[in-house]
Amino acid sequence: MTSVGVVGLGLIGGSLARDLARAGWRVLGDDRDAATLAAARSAGVILRPLEPRDLGSLDLLVLALPVRASIEWVRQAGGRIAAESPLVITDVGSTKASILAAADAAGLAGRFVGSHPMAGSHESGWSAARTGLFRDRPVWICPSSASAPAAVTEVERVWAAVGARTRRLDAAAHDRRLARTSHLPQLTATALAGVLARHQVAPDDLGPGGRDATRIAGSHPDMWTDIALDNRHHIAPALEELARDLAELAALVRSGDAPALHARLHAARTWSHGAPAPAP
Amino acid sequence: MTSVGVVGLGLIGGSLARDLARAGWRVLGDDRDAATLAAARSAGVILRPLEPRDLGSLDLLVLALPVRASIEWVRQAGGRIAAESPLVITDVGSTKASILAAADAAGLAGRFVGSHPMAGSHESGWSAARTGLFRDRPVWICPSSASAPAAVTEVERVWAAVGARTRRLDAAAHDRRLARTSHLPQLTATALAGVLARHQVAPDDLGPGGRDATRIAGSHPDMWTDIALDNRHHIAPALEELARDLAELAALVRSGDAPALHARLHAARTWSHGAPAPAP
Repeated sequence: MTSVGVVGLGLIGGSLARDLARAGWRVLGDDRDAATLAAARSAGVILRPLEPRDLGSLDLLVLALPVRASIEWVRQAGGRIAAESPLVITDVGSTKASILAAADAAGLAGRFVGSHPMAGSHESGWSAARTGLFRDRPVWICPSSASAPAAVTEVERVWAAVGARTRRLDAAAHDRRLARTSHLPQLTATALAGVLARHQVAPDDLGPGGRDATRIAGSHPDMWTDIALDNRHHIAPALEELARDLAELAALVRSGDAPALHARLHAARTWSHGAPAPAP
Repeated sequence: MTSVGVVGLGLIGGSLARDLARAGWRVLGDDRDAATLAAARSAGVILRPLEPRDLGSLDLLVLALPVRASIEWVRQAGGRIAAESPLVITDVGSTKASILAAADAAGLAGRFVGSHPMAGSHESGWSAARTGLFRDRPVWICPSSASAPAAVTEVERVWAAVGARTRRLDAAAHDRRLARTSHLPQLTATALAGVLARHQVAPDDLGPGGRDATRIAGSHPDMWTDIALDNRHHIAPALEELARDLAELAALVRSGDAPALHARLHAARTWSHGAPAPAP
């Protein structure tokens, strides 16, 4: 039986703990919120709270915390893990370069492998955690150059156990990619919500399309402040590019340039149907 | 039994025809696509194709066409409708001032009342039409100053028959409002898709949040070119405002201004939970 510790029982950590417990793994858990810890225990998801002395006997530790909190955990705990312990550590954050650098600096590089499950939501916390969250979802696996091959395999195994599809990717490439596939859509929804709020438009005033486009405006501000700042060098240019494109679109609308406007709408529709189309 | 003609059997017209036929109304239909017309007839949704001579005997005509096509229909048909005909006419377009002006100019103002069901989708066409599309959906009812009270009541009755919730609104106020509640989210998704396409990010590369934020990028380019140009004086400033906010957000991310960034994420989340919050 594999022993796993899950630090942070929010949407991702709580859902992972639920699935692993159901799959027969021995799950210990930690959360800064005592009520969450008690709820996870009384639901039979965690066996008992994770304690520092458990680190020597666990097979795997999952840091399911906001990016900066995971980095802080690695910095503080690095020296406390005995060299002979078999413990493998992963995290679930939306950026990967900084946590791998922190693990390296803390002397944990051999046993650390980054994970990023693409299963987030505008919901958060233990109350949002549910079984099956990772089924058929992609999970990026980002080893460092120092990660032990067995550690990579172990981390892939935990995600396979909950039905996810893992893909390996270099951390720098991951962060560059995620700036567009995840961080840009999030901050776009945030900005759109800001404009609507300024003009007293409520979510209930929107049609189905507007509701879709702004759903993730409800994502957790702590988590996303962390991500935005941690990946700022990739995110800022992406936001600037979108701002320029929107200003161009505004100019086309203002001047009544039907062919150019139609071309952009058409290219976007082609893209949404899955065929890669060069944008204008 | 009420006789209704539906011109345009796409997502909105086709769904309306389905619901009205099911509710026992006598439905005639028109569509420029012969296959659509045949399919609607063989599905028992329309009794037979609508012909020009039917206009004298119908109770209600619904123009379920793109904005410019409805305006064109009104311009051309205005003179063909006998003064003594009881026919009431409505449309379903996403802008209302220009169609009301066209109806007025065509001498139809007394019998014309604008509608706008907030039930659109990134899907379109007869194949996307389905029963129940309007259930509990808001529908804006925009009379002109010349609309006969009985015509307004008749148009409200058709939407009530398919389970929608009608609200009356002045056409100018409607267009100003919809620029933000519908047109801005649409064009934001279009622009976001443009950035992603330029960088070879496919829809399948996105997480659940990114997919939500870009779903309506698949909307029909003909329909949306019409809407964007027809409502350009309200939409262009909204796009420019969002472009400015995104540029500001980019500056906060680039400079690492955590408190200001957190404040925007927090305000957006508060907004998404339904409480009106002043944006920063």
